[in-house]
Amino acid sequence: MISLHFDHGLIPVIAQDSTTQEILMLAYANSEAVELTRSTGFAHYYSRSRKKLWKKGEESGHTQRVVRIITDCDEDALIYQIEQKGAACHTGYRSCFYRTLEGEIIAEKVFDPDEVYANKPE
Amino acid sequence: MISLHFDHGLIPVIAQDSTTQEILMLAYANSEAVELTRSTGFAHYYSRSRKKLWKKGEESGHTQRVVRIITDCDEDALIYQIEQKGAACHTGYRSCFYRTLEGEIIAEKVFDPDEVYANKPE
Repeated sequence: MISLHFDHGLIPVIAQDSTTQEILMLAYANSEAVELTRSTGFAHYYSRSRKKLWKKGEESGHTQRVVRIITDCDEDALIYQIEQKGAACHTGYRSCFYRTLEGEIIAEKVFDPDEVYANKPE
Repeated sequence: MISLHFDHGLIPVIAQDSTTQEILMLAYANSEAVELTRSTGFAHYYSRSRKKLWKKGEESGHTQRVVRIITDCDEDALIYQIEQKGAACHTGYRSCFYRTLEGEIIAEKVFDPDEVYANKPE
Protein backbone atom coordinates (compact mmCIF):
# COMPACT_ATOMS: atom_id res chain seq x y z
CA MET A 1 0.00 0.00 0.00
CA ILE A 2 1.32 3.43 -0.99
CA SER A 3 1.76 5.84 1.92
CA LEU A 4 -0.10 9.03 0.99
CA HIS A 5 0.84 12.60 1.86
CA PHE A 6 -2.04 14.59 3.28
CA ASP A 7 -1.86 18.40 3.34
CA HIS A 8 -3.49 19.60 6.56
CA GLY A 9 -5.17 16.20 6.69
CA LEU A 10 -6.54 16.32 3.14
CA ILE A 11 -5.64 15.02 -0.31
CA PRO A 12 -7.25 16.19 -3.59
CA VAL A 13 -9.23 13.51 -5.41
CA ILE A 14 -10.23 13.54 -9.06
CA ALA A 15 -13.33 11.49 -9.81
CA GLN A 16 -13.05 10.08 -13.32
CA ASP A 17 -15.50 7.96 -15.29
CA SER A 18 -13.78 4.58 -15.52
CA THR A 19 -15.15 3.93 -19.01
CA THR A 20 -15.10 7.26 -20.87
CA GLN A 21 -12.24 8.83 -18.85
CA GLU A 22 -14.40 11.97 -18.42
CA ILE A 23 -13.38 14.03 -15.38
CA LEU A 24 -16.47 14.39 -13.22
CA MET A 25 -15.38 16.36 -10.16
CA LEU A 26 -12.52 17.35 -7.91
CA ALA A 27 -12.99 17.02 -4.17
CA TYR A 28 -10.91 16.27 -1.08
CA ALA A 29 -10.53 13.23 1.15
CA ASN A 30 -9.01 12.66 4.56
CA SER A 31 -7.45 9.33 5.46
CA GLU A 32 -10.73 8.03 6.88
CA ALA A 33 -12.54 8.86 3.62
CA VAL A 34 -9.90 7.01 1.58
CA GLU A 35 -10.14 4.02 3.90
CA LEU A 36 -13.95 3.97 3.72
CA THR A 37 -13.76 4.23 -0.06
CA ARG A 38 -11.48 1.19 -0.14
CA SER A 39 -13.50 -0.86 2.31
CA THR A 40 -16.98 -0.09 0.93
CA GLY A 41 -16.21 0.35 -2.77
CA PHE A 42 -18.12 3.65 -2.81
CA ALA A 43 -16.53 7.08 -3.07
CA HIS A 44 -16.19 9.01 0.18
CA TYR A 45 -14.81 12.51 0.56
CA TYR A 46 -14.28 15.14 3.23
CA SER A 47 -16.28 18.34 2.88
CA ARG A 48 -14.12 21.35 3.75
CA SER A 49 -17.15 23.65 4.07
CA ARG A 50 -19.25 21.29 6.18
CA LYS A 51 -16.18 19.89 7.93
CA LYS A 52 -17.41 16.33 7.75
CA LEU A 53 -16.90 13.02 6.05
CA TRP A 54 -19.26 12.59 3.15
CA LYS A 55 -20.43 9.66 1.03
CA LYS A 56 -21.08 10.87 -2.49
CA GLY A 57 -24.77 10.40 -3.29
CA GLU A 58 -25.92 9.98 0.31
CA GLU A 59 -28.63 12.59 -0.33
CA SER A 60 -29.14 12.49 -4.11
CA GLY A 61 -28.67 8.76 -4.63
CA HIS A 62 -25.99 9.63 -7.19
CA THR A 63 -23.38 7.30 -5.76
CA GLN A 64 -19.99 6.45 -7.23
CA ARG A 65 -18.88 2.82 -7.39
CA VAL A 66 -15.08 2.89 -7.27
CA VAL A 67 -13.35 0.59 -9.74
CA ARG A 68 -9.75 1.65 -9.03
CA ILE A 69 -7.81 4.19 -6.98
CA ILE A 70 -4.69 5.64 -8.58
CA THR A 71 -2.08 7.88 -6.96
CA ASP A 72 0.49 10.18 -8.52
CA CYS A 73 4.30 10.27 -8.40
CA ASP A 74 4.34 12.50 -5.31
CA GLU A 75 1.64 10.49 -3.51
CA ASP A 76 -0.26 13.71 -2.86
CA ALA A 77 -3.19 13.36 -5.26
CA LEU A 78 -5.65 10.58 -6.11
CA ILE A 79 -7.90 9.50 -8.92
CA TYR A 80 -11.03 7.56 -8.07
CA GLN A 81 -11.95 5.75 -11.28
CA ILE A 82 -15.67 5.27 -10.89
CA GLU A 83 -19.01 4.24 -12.28
CA GLN A 84 -21.24 7.27 -11.73
CA LYS A 85 -24.93 6.72 -10.93
CA GLY A 86 -26.95 9.71 -12.14
CA ALA A 87 -24.68 12.73 -12.22
CA ALA A 88 -21.67 13.94 -10.27
CA CYS A 89 -22.65 17.61 -10.08
CA HIS A 90 -25.36 18.99 -7.79
CA THR A 91 -26.24 21.54 -10.50
CA GLY A 92 -27.71 18.85 -12.75
CA TYR A 93 -24.74 18.43 -15.05
CA ARG A 94 -23.06 15.05 -15.29
CA SER A 95 -19.67 16.65 -14.61
CA CYS A 96 -18.87 19.63 -12.40
CA PHE A 97 -16.59 20.78 -15.22
CA TYR A 98 -19.29 22.08 -17.56
CA ARG A 99 -17.97 25.58 -18.34
CA THR A 100 -14.88 27.01 -19.98
CA LEU A 101 -12.97 29.75 -18.18
CA GLU A 102 -14.65 32.17 -20.59
CA GLY A 103 -18.05 31.06 -19.29
CA GLU A 104 -19.20 28.96 -22.25
CA ILE A 105 -21.40 26.01 -21.24
CA ILE A 106 -20.01 22.87 -22.86
CA ALA A 107 -22.45 20.25 -21.51
CA GLU A 108 -26.14 19.58 -21.07
CA LYS A 109 -28.04 19.05 -17.83
CA VAL A 110 -29.00 15.47 -17.14
CA PHE A 111 -31.33 16.06 -14.17
CA ASP A 112 -33.34 18.78 -12.46
CA PRO A 113 -31.72 19.66 -9.12
CA ASP A 114 -35.06 20.81 -7.67
CA GLU A 115 -36.42 17.30 -8.03
CA VAL A 116 -33.37 15.55 -6.62
CA TYR A 117 -32.44 17.77 -3.68
CA ALA A 118 -35.79 18.29 -1.97
CA ASN A 119 -34.30 20.06 1.05
CA LYS A 120 -31.65 22.04 -0.72
CA PRO A 121 -32.39 25.79 -0.62
CA GLU A 122 -30.39 26.85 -3.70
CA MET B 1 -14.65 35.48 -17.82
CA ILE B 2 -15.40 33.32 -14.78
CA SER B 3 -14.10 34.74 -11.49
CA LEU B 4 -12.03 31.99 -9.86
CA HIS B 5 -11.69 31.24 -6.16
CA PHE B 6 -8.09 30.81 -5.05
CA ASP B 7 -7.33 29.10 -1.74
CA HIS B 8 -4.35 30.86 -0.16
CA GLY B 9 -3.63 32.17 -3.63
CA LEU B 10 -3.74 28.79 -5.36
CA ILE B 11 -6.18 26.71 -7.39
CA PRO B 12 -5.73 23.00 -8.23
CA VAL B 13 -5.31 22.26 -11.93
CA ILE B 14 -5.81 18.90 -13.61
CA ALA B 15 -3.82 18.51 -16.83
CA GLN B 16 -5.78 16.28 -19.19
CA ASP B 17 -4.86 15.03 -22.66
CA SER B 18 -7.29 16.85 -24.95
CA THR B 19 -7.58 13.89 -27.31
CA THR B 20 -7.53 10.75 -25.16
CA GLN B 21 -8.93 12.39 -21.97
CA GLU B 22 -6.08 10.73 -20.01
CA ILE B 23 -5.33 12.57 -16.75
CA LEU B 24 -1.65 13.49 -16.85
CA MET B 25 -0.97 15.40 -13.63
CA LEU B 26 -2.42 17.53 -10.86
CA ALA B 27 -0.64 20.73 -9.95
CA TYR B 28 -1.48 24.21 -8.65
CA ALA B 29 -1.69 27.63 -10.25
CA ASN B 30 -1.84 31.15 -8.89
CA SER B 31 -3.70 33.87 -10.78
CA GLU B 32 -0.54 34.91 -12.63
CA ALA B 33 0.02 31.32 -13.82
CA VAL B 34 -3.56 31.10 -15.11
CA GLU B 35 -3.17 34.44 -16.88
CA LEU B 36 0.14 33.39 -18.48
CA THR B 37 -1.42 30.11 -19.56
CA ARG B 38 -4.20 32.03 -21.28
CA SER B 39 -1.96 34.60 -22.91
CA THR B 40 0.80 32.24 -24.10
CA GLY B 41 -1.22 29.07 -24.80
CA PHE B 42 1.28 27.01 -22.75
CA ALA B 43 0.56 25.53 -19.32
CA HIS B 44 1.99 27.47 -16.38
CA TYR B 45 1.73 26.46 -12.73
CA TYR B 46 2.92 27.58 -9.32
CA SER B 47 5.32 25.28 -7.51
CA ARG B 48 4.46 25.10 -3.81
CA SER B 49 7.83 23.54 -2.91
CA ARG B 50 9.96 25.95 -4.95
CA LYS B 51 7.55 28.85 -4.30
CA LYS B 52 7.73 30.09 -7.85
CA LEU B 53 5.83 30.34 -11.08
CA TRP B 54 6.73 27.54 -13.42
CA LYS B 55 6.24 26.87 -17.12
CA LYS B 56 5.77 23.15 -17.66
CA GLY B 57 8.63 21.82 -19.76
CA GLU B 58 10.93 24.79 -19.25
CA GLU B 59 13.72 22.37 -18.31
CA SER B 60 12.69 19.10 -19.97
CA GLY B 61 11.19 20.53 -23.14
CA HIS B 62 8.02 18.59 -22.30
CA THR B 63 5.69 21.53 -22.77
CA GLN B 64 1.89 21.49 -22.72
CA ARG B 65 -0.01 23.35 -25.42
CA VAL B 66 -3.34 24.33 -23.86
CA VAL B 67 -6.39 23.75 -26.03
CA ARG B 68 -9.07 24.72 -23.50
CA ILE B 69 -9.39 25.69 -19.85
CA ILE B 70 -12.45 24.40 -18.00
CA THR B 71 -13.63 25.33 -14.51
CA ASP B 72 -15.96 23.52 -12.14
CA CYS B 73 -19.28 24.50 -10.56
CA ASP B 74 -17.59 26.07 -7.52
CA GLU B 75 -14.97 27.91 -9.60
CA ASP B 76 -12.27 26.46 -7.35
CA ALA B 77 -10.65 23.88 -9.67
CA LEU B 78 -9.47 23.92 -13.28
CA ILE B 79 -8.80 21.50 -16.10
CA TYR B 80 -6.13 22.40 -18.63
CA GLN B 81 -7.00 20.32 -21.70
CA ILE B 82 -3.64 19.97 -23.39
CA GLU B 83 -1.44 18.50 -26.07
CA GLN B 84 1.49 17.00 -24.16
CA LYS B 85 4.93 17.07 -25.74
CA GLY B 86 7.01 14.12 -24.44
CA ALA B 87 5.65 13.18 -21.04
CA ALA B 88 4.00 14.97 -18.14
CA CYS B 89 5.83 13.17 -15.34
CA HIS B 90 9.46 13.79 -14.38
CA THR B 91 9.81 10.07 -13.55
CA GLY B 92 9.61 9.09 -17.22
CA TYR B 93 5.97 8.05 -17.28
CA ARG B 94 3.59 9.87 -19.59
CA SER B 95 1.20 10.49 -16.69
CA CYS B 96 2.05 11.12 -13.04
CA PHE B 97 -0.79 8.72 -12.22
CA TYR B 98 1.03 5.48 -13.03
CA ARG B 99 0.38 3.47 -9.83
CA THR B 100 -2.65 2.14 -8.03
CA LEU B 101 -3.01 2.82 -4.32
CA GLU B 102 -1.87 -0.77 -3.79
CA GLY B 103 1.40 0.04 -5.59
CA GLU B 104 0.78 -1.75 -8.88
CA ILE B 105 2.44 -0.02 -11.85
CA ILE B 106 -0.19 0.45 -14.56
CA ALA B 107 1.88 2.26 -17.23
CA GLU B 108 5.19 2.06 -19.06
CA LYS B 109 7.98 4.60 -19.04
CA VAL B 110 8.26 6.67 -22.20
CA PHE B 111 11.61 8.34 -21.50
CA ASP B 112 14.72 8.03 -19.33
CA PRO B 113 14.76 10.82 -16.73
CA ASP B 114 18.58 10.70 -16.52
CA GLU B 115 18.83 11.74 -20.13
CA VAL B 116 16.22 14.50 -19.92
CA TYR B 117 17.04 16.16 -16.60
CA ALA B 118 20.81 16.54 -16.82
CA ASN B 119 21.06 18.69 -13.69
CA LYS B 120 18.52 16.88 -11.59
CA PRO B 121 20.17 15.17 -8.58
CA GLU B 122 17.59 12.41 -8.02
